[in-house]
Parts: sequence; C-alpha cells; structure tokens
Amino acid sequence: MVHTVPYNKRGGLLSSSSPGTECDVSKTLQELAEYLGGQVKGDPAAVITGLGTLDNAVEGQITFLANPRYGAKVGTTRAAAIVMPPTAETFGRNAIVVDNPYLAFAKLLTLFTSRPRSAKGVMAGAFVGRDVVIGKDASIYPGACIADGVRIGDRVTIHGNVSLYEGVVLGDDVTLHSGVSVREGCLLGSRVTIHNGTIIGGDGFGYAPNGKGWFKIPQIGNVVIEDDVEIGANSTVDRAALETTRIGRGTKIDNLVQVAHNCDIGEDCIIVAQAGIAGSARLGRHVTLGGQVAIVDHTVIGDNAMISGQSGVFGNVAAGAVLSGTPAMPHQARLKSAAIFPYLPEMRKTLAKLGSRMARVEERLEPAVAID
Amino acid sequence: MVHTVPYNKRGGLLSSSSPGTECDVSKTLQELAEYLGGQVKGDPAAVITGLGTLDNAVEGQITFLANPRYGAKVGTTRAAAIVMPPTAETFGRNAIVVDNPYLAFAKLLTLFTSRPRSAKGVMAGAFVGRDVVIGKDASIYPGACIADGVRIGDRVTIHGNVSLYEGVVLGDDVTLHSGVSVREGCLLGSRVTIHNGTIIGGDGFGYAPNGKGWFKIPQIGNVVIEDDVEIGANSTVDRAALETTRIGRGTKIDNLVQVAHNCDIGEDCIIVAQAGIAGSARLGRHVTLGGQVAIVDHTVIGDNAMISGQSGVFGNVAAGAVLSGTPAMPHQARLKSAAIFPYLPEMRKTLAKLGSRMARVEERLEPAVAID
Amino acid sequence: MVHTVPYNKRGGLLSSSSPGTECDVSKTLQELAEYLGGQVKGDPAAVITGLGTLDNAVEGQITFLANPRYGAKVGTTRAAAIVMPPTAETFGRNAIVVDNPYLAFAKLLTLFTSRPRSAKGVMAGAFVGRDVVIGKDASIYPGACIADGVRIGDRVTIHGNVSLYEGVVLGDDVTLHSGVSVREGCLLGSRVTIHNGTIIGGDGFGYAPNGKGWFKIPQIGNVVIEDDVEIGANSTVDRAALETTRIGRGTKIDNLVQVAHNCDIGEDCIIVAQAGIAGSARLGRHVTLGGQVAIVDHTVIGDNAMISGQSGVFGNVAAGAVLSGTPAMPHQARLKSAAIFPYLPEMRKTLAKLGSRMARVEERLEPAVAID
Repeated sequence: MVHTVPYNKRGGLLSSSSPGTECDVSKTLQELAEYLGGQVKGDPAAVITGLGTLDNAVEGQITFLANPRYGAKVGTTRAAAIVMPPTAETFGRNAIVVDNPYLAFAKLLTLFTSRPRSAKGVMAGAFVGRDVVIGKDASIYPGACIADGVRIGDRVTIHGNVSLYEGVVLGDDVTLHSGVSVREGCLLGSRVTIHNGTIIGGDGFGYAPNGKGWFKIPQIGNVVIEDDVEIGANSTVDRAALETTRIGRGTKIDNLVQVAHNCDIGEDCIIVAQAGIAGSARLGRHVTLGGQVAIVDHTVIGDNAMISGQSGVFGNVAAGAVLSGTPAMPHQARLKSAAIFPYLPEMRKTLAKLGSRMARVEERLEPAVAID
Repeated sequence: MVHTVPYNKRGGLLSSSSPGTECDVSKTLQELAEYLGGQVKGDPAAVITGLGTLDNAVEGQITFLANPRYGAKVGTTRAAAIVMPPTAETFGRNAIVVDNPYLAFAKLLTLFTSRPRSAKGVMAGAFVGRDVVIGKDASIYPGACIADGVRIGDRVTIHGNVSLYEGVVLGDDVTLHSGVSVREGCLLGSRVTIHNGTIIGGDGFGYAPNGKGWFKIPQIGNVVIEDDVEIGANSTVDRAALETTRIGRGTKIDNLVQVAHNCDIGEDCIIVAQAGIAGSARLGRHVTLGGQVAIVDHTVIGDNAMISGQSGVFGNVAAGAVLSGTPAMPHQARLKSAAIFPYLPEMRKTLAKLGSRMARVEERLEPAVAID
Repeated sequence: MVHTVPYNKRGGLLSSSSPGTECDVSKTLQELAEYLGGQVKGDPAAVITGLGTLDNAVEGQITFLANPRYGAKVGTTRAAAIVMPPTAETFGRNAIVVDNPYLAFAKLLTLFTSRPRSAKGVMAGAFVGRDVVIGKDASIYPGACIADGVRIGDRVTIHGNVSLYEGVVLGDDVTLHSGVSVREGCLLGSRVTIHNGTIIGGDGFGYAPNGKGWFKIPQIGNVVIEDDVEIGANSTVDRAALETTRIGRGTKIDNLVQVAHNCDIGEDCIIVAQAGIAGSARLGRHVTLGGQVAIVDHTVIGDNAMISGQSGVFGNVAAGAVLSGTPAMPHQARLKSAAIFPYLPEMRKTLAKLGSRMARVEERLEPAVAID
C-alpha cells in the first residue's frame, strides 16, 4: 500500500526523509572558512557539498568536532574536512579552525539546509479583507483570514488558518505558521517567526470586583513584537490593558509560554517552555527563564539574570543573579538547602532527643547549683 | 515604504493606534455620576468626551485618582474632571466621588472605548452545515466551520477558523475568537467570551490498563459553560466521561489553563494562567487559583478559598482557606517555613555540633554520677 | 426561542443530549460475556440493549459494580444484568463476572456508544495540494489545508482547520481534530488520534550565542508518532534538530504537554496534562508522568518509573522508581520530609534555645574542669 507509514525511516542529517536537506550547495573550504570567520588548515580549494557526522560523513561532506573526547575520530572520519577548535589535532586532515564550533555548526547547517524561498502569492482559499496592503513576494496560504486594514511587509509567509485581525501590521520577512492568531492593532517587526497555534494579543486578564462578581476591564492596548523575535507553538502573549505589551528585539520564546498584559520583555531574552510571566513584569536584556518558571506580577528582573526551571519569582531580581526554587533564592544556596531536605525527619528526631538529653543533663546539674 | 512597522508607535489610551478608542461618546458629569453610582462635586453640566491619565489628560477628558499618593495631581491635571474616592481632596475641581475608583475606571473605559457592534452576517468563506439555526445579527467570519445541527443565539460573533462540532449550542451575545474549537454536544450560555485557540470538549484523559497497554474509556459526556464566563487563549476544558464538565456562571479563566473531565467549577471563580485542575475536582463559588496551581483529581475546594501561585493541592480545602506551597498549607505558615529553608544547611551543622557538645557534657557528668 | 441554551440539560450516559449514545446495539448476556472474557451467572439468553448506572439503569440495560461498597444495590437495581468482580454477590440476578470491572466497563461503553463511522470524502472547502495520496473512506472537512505531497491512509478523519505541511504521512484510521497542525516531513502511524489544537513538529528550541545575541540552529529533523498513540488538546511535540523526536507505540499524552526536540518517549507511557519534557530526554516503556512534571534535558527515565505531579526531575531515574518533589526524590521519603516542613520555624527556635541551654551547661561544667 502506497500510504503505509514508514516510521522506521527516521529523519536526520543524511536521511532522504529529512525535509531540509534537499538543496544544492557547493563551496570551497576557503569560502566556508571565510563564512565562518575561521582559518583553513590543509587544502583551501577542497570542495564541500554537504554536512555529515564524524561517524557517518561521506566524501565531499564537512563534519564537526565539538566534544574534544572524540578528537581521535578526526583521523579516521571519511569526511572531506572537519570544523574544530584551536586545541584539536588535525591528523593531517583538511580543517577549519574556529573558536566556537557549536556556532559554526549552526551556521553551516543554515548554509547547507536552507532552501531558497519561492513566493506563492495569495493562494486560492485565502481570505483578504479591504484596504489590506501586501508587500512583494508574499506567500499566503489557503484558509488564512486577513481582516480589513492589515499591512504586510515584503517576503512574508502566512500559513493556512492564520487569523490577522483588523489593523495588524507585519514587517518584512515575517513567517506565521498555521493556526497563529494576531489580534487587532498588534505590531510585529521584521524577521519575526511565530510557530503554530500561538496567540498574540488576546485580552489581558483584568476584572474589578463589583460586589456581586467580576466586571471586565477593557483591554484596549496592544502587543508589539520587535525585530528578530521567534516564538514557539501554542504560546500566548496578551495585549496590554491600556498601553503595550512588548517583546524586545532578538528574544526567543519557546512553546506554551504565557506572557501577561503590560509585560515588557527586554532584548535577547531566552524563555523556555511553559514559563509564565504575570502582568506588568519587566525583564531586562538577555534574561533567561527556565521551563515552567513563574514570575509574579510587577516583578522587575535585571539584565543577564538566570532563573532555573520550575522556580517561582516573588520579588525583584538583581542583574546577573542566578536563582532557583519557590520562592526563588540564589541557586547555589538552594542546592545546598535542597540537599538537606531529605534529612528533615531525621533532624526533627535528633532535635527531640537532644531536648531530652539536655533536660536530663540540666536536672543533674541543678541540684549541684542548689547546693552552691 | 508604506508597510514599515512603526513599532515605536505604542498602543494606549490616548494613542491613535489603540484599536478601542475611536468612538464618539459625549456625556455630562451628571450622566457619568449616575452611570457610576457616584456623586458630583462641581459642575454637573460639564461635558466629558473621553478618558485620560492624570498626567496626560486633555480638555474634555475625565481622569482617575486611584492611588492616594498622587492626590496632589488633582490640583494640576488638565482633565475636565476627576473620579476619586471620598477621602480625596477636590482642589475645587469637577469630580465624581465613588467608593471604588478602580471599578469606576473599568466602567468608564467600557463606556468610552466600546464600539457599537455591527453584524456582518454569515460571510463568504464560512462553512455552515445542515440544520444549523442562527439567531439574529450574527457575525460569522471566513474559515469558520459550523457542523450540522448547531444552534446559535442572537448577536453571536464567530471569528475565522473557529470549529463548532455537531450539536453545539451557543446562547446570545457569545464571542468565539479565531481558532476556538467547541466539540460535539457542548453547550455555552449567553455572554460567554472565549479567546483564541481555546478548546472546549476535547476527550477527557481516561484509559484502563488491559494487561498489555491502555484501553481507551470513551468520553461520552459534554461541557457546559454557563452565562458570563470568559476564558482566555489556548486553554482546554475536557468533556466529561459520562456526564458534564461544568464552568459556573461568571467564572473567569485565563490562558493555558487545563480543566480536566468531570470537573465542576462554581460561580465567579478566578483561575489564573497555566493552572491545572485534574479530573472530577469540585470548586465552590468565588474560588481563586493562582498561576500554575495544580489541583489533584477529586479534590473539593470550598467557597472563597484562595490558592497561591504554583501551589499543589493534594487534599480537600475548607471554605475561605488561603493556602500555598506543594503540598499546600496555610499561606502565612508556609511563608514562615519557607523563610527557614535557606538556613537548613546551617541548622544541620548546628545540630551535629550540639550532638558532639552534648556527648562531651554527658561524658563529663557520667563519672560524677558513677561516684555518687 | 429555539436557540435558548438549555444548559441545565446535562450530558451523560442516559441523556438524550449525550452525543455518543444514539446507537442501536442489542446483545445477549452470553455474547457480552464472551466479548469481555467473563462468565455468565443467570440467564445467558437475556437481551441487553444499553448501559446504565446501578441507580438509574432501566429494563434491558446492563450496569456495573466497581466499588464493593455498593454491593447491596445489586439486589435492588432495575438493570437486566450486572458486571461484577468474582468476590461480589449476585443476589440471584443475571451477572457477568470479570476480574477487572473497570476495564469491562470501558469495553461495554465502547460497544454501546460507538457510532459507525461514515466516510464523507473530501468536502467542499477543504484545500488539497498536488501529489497528495488519500486512502479509501476518508473524511476531510472544510478548512483543512493539505500541502503538496502528503500521503494519507485509509479511513482517516481530518477535521476543519487542520494543517498538514509538505511531506506529512498519516497511517490508517488516524483522526486529527480541528486546529491540529502537522509540520513538514512528520510521520504518524495507524490509529493515532490527536485532539484539537495540538502541534506536531514545530521547530525545536535551539540557538547558539554569537556574541551579540542568538543564532538559530536549523531544526531539520522530524517527529514520528507511532501506532495507537493518542495526544490531547493544545499540546506541542517539537521536531528534532537533526534526527527524530519519537512518541512510542500506545503512549497516551494529555492536554498542554510539551515534548521538546530529540526526545524519545517509549511505548505505553502516560503523560498527564501540562507536563514538560526538555530536549533529548529518553523515557522507557510504561513511564507515568503526573501533571505539571518537568523533566530536564538529556534525562534518562527507566521503564515503569512514576513521577508524581509537579515534580522536577534533574537526573536519571531508575526503572520502577516512584519519585516526587523538586528536585525529585523517592516519593515515600519526600512525603515524610514534606510533613516536617511546617515545623521548620519551631525547629529553628528549638535549636537556638538548645544552643543557649548547652552554653549554660558548659559554662557550669567548665569551672569544675578548671579546678581539676
């Protein structure tokens, strides 16, 4: 049967089922070294046509040495060249020496696996309202719903079943995956990528008690997502009550993350899956939040702070702090306290026994005292 | 370029980019005082045409004093009038005195920012099945999929890419934002608002072990969402196994919340983002769950209980209780215990030293005892 | 008004509003006993046409005794027969005796509530790309977007607003509920069910620091979901960086769960709502993760391990271990430590007092020592 699922056929770097690998790139070692800002050892004219692993690379492919433990494999790999750190030995092989092989790896993956984007235009089955401005080379898939007055930059890709409400503005080179919704009046910068099912600009969670129940506070602000932000799947960023919920330039947000109304997230932050940031919190630049972290409303977190997974932050955090736990405390101190936690029952027993022993000792001494 | 993103142009109360503010309301101070149930000081005939902040309000706008700390600004604001609590000074300005300025603020925001709803009918690109009943003045957007036998009340708004399965019933004045799915047989009351991507009536998570793996227990119940409920984005409310998962009247649920099968949530509850309520739990009226709270299955939580963020509730909770932590305990007591947690390593060391000192003391005393 | 919401009319087993109950099954007690692998007591020819509860069953219906506490009701129920464990008394009624009444209940529910599936074909309003292969008896609803080169097995149901990207392969008897997205190159086995809004194959969360900000690591792998997997609503399973994120055969995943890139989840696991599994973690067979559990990246969890709700697992877990807490520790030990937590303030005070008492005792003893 033609449609039997071959799920034993895995994806992967060298697999024909890997969707990103069917492109046709050919570069000399010298060209790659310049691209990576590295230095050639061996033959700069060697031609590279693909990527492989140390174990599985074939002729014409370049591979990586990231972990020094595998240094000996450099001598035996069939790869045409190896990207390696300055400390590694070449065994006489062609190599590119770089300071950061992990970053170089990411760059080569990008080079060898990016397909050229081909604009598809506004496809049949896409719904486009009135007064919509669409830049050049757009791809808008069937089932996308674009409301009146939306403005869209150049080279934007909008997948199926995306909804853009009235007045949304998208910059250039934006990609919105299927199921994304961007609510009224929200603004996205250039090179923003939003994965499937994520919601930008849902109402903030604000109600005033009116003696009987809850009176809704209208949420009339918006969301601004700055350039080069990427947001994962099924996350939510709420619109501000009055002004703007901001996601700063270059920040990366994972799946199922909640950013509440009025938050201001700085540049180049990393926010891991299922973290939640309550209303009006402010994160500085380059803050890292681990998975399932909770940040209480109105908290201010300084630049470069790191909050470990599952922590709960109930107060302001100094720049550069490394915290963990609920309530969050300095990470190293918390590890030490957490290591004691299993001994609590024993400690309580010991304490009770010491109390008895002390009482006995005191009893013995008291008569002597009385005699004095 | 016309489509450059002006994301330095923020949303907000006074901003032209704020989507909610372009409406045309004009009221006298007397009319507003009656609307708010407050009392005029100054000129009841003063005309108010908008809202502003203490700092930024312009002529014709009304503003608020919520925080007494800013009382002096009442004397200097350019606003035409100020809403204030009875304790504040008017500085001879026009004012409306109310007991709850925060609620009054919400009400005025509603008054000044609500646009009149204009019914758009069933738009081209919406898919409507057989035997569907649609009330008057509906707006049904492109990409909405409405299955056979659905019944829809008056003045309902169904955005793009909403899916209503067979037999769904919606009351009057319901708003379903894009990406919402309501599964077969689920019922929503009137004035229910559900934000984007939320799923009502997915199967409950129920499997019986059959010796080899897991046998699915059919989930044949439904979900009932009562009047005036609002649910945020990307939340999930599962259908009951046999009967009904209920969300009580007036309850407000935030984003990314999980309500499992058979739960019964009372009236006027507040459930903050990323909270999870396991199967068959029962919440009373006016219960508050903080963000990322977990409620274990079959738990019963009394009226007006409050559970602090990230807590884990593993047993029944009395009405009015205020709990926090995992396992949850009275909040004040937990704060005290949590404050000791950082001292655990020190406590363990002290305990060990006390043990040695005690042994030395006992040793000293024993010979004396023997001599006796 | 025809569209008034009758939300006092609950769903349920015997309710006409229950969507699953309108089917027409008639079996003898003997036939049902064979279906369940049980033993008839009483009249094997008795005809059963439906299911009911002990309290509410009517003539012709079969009911269950799961909880021995209700054993006396067997004598008084109006049901035509009772499914019961070997230890229960029949009171002379017709019965089927089985070892596992809970499983038998699930099986009878399936038998009596499953409607025959009727294929609807590719409905108007579904978007199907080029070179798509669709097996027999498919139902593809309006608003579904199926990209070029997708291959779909027999008897597959694809609801409205589902998006299948290029190169997706689905096995037989797959059901994808509305709002599901399956990204490029992902493979689903047979009898896979995915509830609404779940995203399969969004990019894994991988960035390399480049000195200024974050450089995206292309995620060129895929996701493979093996046979008989069921995934709840609004969950996310990320595609691997290079190879495959795997969900093993028969595993059941609840709502709002995050499975990060490169994870390998074994067969027959149970993963409860809002759990998060970080990158490259490996779960064995039949592992249970409670709600809101966090598993740190690269963790290996052995077969049959159970992790209690809200736990945080920061290291490898042995097969069969039962852990809880953050950081996770053996569950019984943690319960004991958690029970001491409320006494920490008292313990610290006691410790301080003991210190003073000890100092006083030592002081008293020291002069004596000096005299020696």
